[in-house]
Amino acid sequence: MTDQLSNGFFSQEFKLKIPDGDDRIRRVCSHCQFVDYINPKIIAASVVTKGSKILLCRRAIDPRKGFWTLPAGFMEQGETVEEAARREAREEANAEIRIDRILAVYSVPRISQVQIMFRAELVSDISPGPESLEVELFDWRDIPWSNLAFPTVLWGLTHYAETRSKTVFAPFSNPPGTEALTR
Amino acid sequence: MTDQLSNGFFSQEFKLKIPDGDDRIRRVCSHCQFVDYINPKIIAASVVTKGSKILLCRRAIDPRKGFWTLPAGFMEQGETVEEAARREAREEANAEIRIDRILAVYSVPRISQVQIMFRAELVSDISPGPESLEVELFDWRDIPWSNLAFPTVLWGLTHYAETRSKTVFAPFSNPPGTEALTR
Ligand SMILES: [Zn+2]
Ligand SMILES: [Zn+2]
Repeated sequence: MTDQLSNGFFSQEFKLKIPDGDDRIRRVCSHCQFVDYINPKIIAASVVTKGSKILLCRRAIDPRKGFWTLPAGFMEQGETVEEAARREAREEANAEIRIDRILAVYSVPRISQVQIMFRAELVSDISPGPESLEVELFDWRDIPWSNLAFPTVLWGLTHYAETRSKTVFAPFSNPPGTEALTR
Repeated sequence: MTDQLSNGFFSQEFKLKIPDGDDRIRRVCSHCQFVDYINPKIIAASVVTKGSKILLCRRAIDPRKGFWTLPAGFMEQGETVEEAARREAREEANAEIRIDRILAVYSVPRISQVQIMFRAELVSDISPGPESLEVELFDWRDIPWSNLAFPTVLWGLTHYAETRSKTVFAPFSNPPGTEALTR
């Protein structure tokens, strides 16, 4: 049912069809009728601050290797969103964080991703984890704006700036006028 | 690689192992090495109100058939969380809703679910969709508290009540003391 590709991944022969009892087209394996229910994936992310400084990580892996990002990654099974955000900060920057509250929920339908982004405080030292080339606490004016890895990093940083003096605020969603980046 | 079961579903023979280049145990098909990356799934839900009344739907399907729930369901590919919440209200109650803001983000790690729940306003008539036995707008005191389908329905309703007079509030998460229900 699958062929191993030169990159080590496997290929399955899926056909698009509507499984019995379902109401929409799914990817179904033509050999064994396995239904590949592709659900949107959750990214847990954090804008982590220490005083007026903001934690960024320079990516050691593709995509966007060498560019700066917020601590973020795919949520795994068996954890809460908050636990996922803390785990990612630990994996990418050896950072212990104290989560304050939800900053934003962004949807990227083109790649079926939902990013749940927290506002958090750094409560440890930092050092690069295996997925980071370097990690750094930036003053706002020194943020490498032209070398950010993803649009959601820019959105998170600018939305964070709007909440700096606030303890209560509604979470942000995708900024208006950014549909071309997400559809 | 799969056997069809009497209920029409297919069974795959998965073994638990760490795929090359990964760092944790995954379910891998013992025949074809297909890796089943099970990611947490997103439920988009809404507390939908009309004046002081709250929309509930009595489930026509398992699990918890016959019990009352909020309009909610699995987010699909290619949509935003807000679009998923509007689609579910349409599917379950033929309801058009106007989303106000995020009410809560609940994590249910035992079943790897994240519920993103909105506060929303009803802007149409309602009638039962195929997954609902009946749909009704309840006064607060008439809500069938002992016949709610899921703990998250109770959480969403009580958290909603705390926000009634508020336009700005931080989203809620799992109530304290409910770990036994979610782990
Ligand atoms: Zn197959
Ligand atoms: Zn297989």
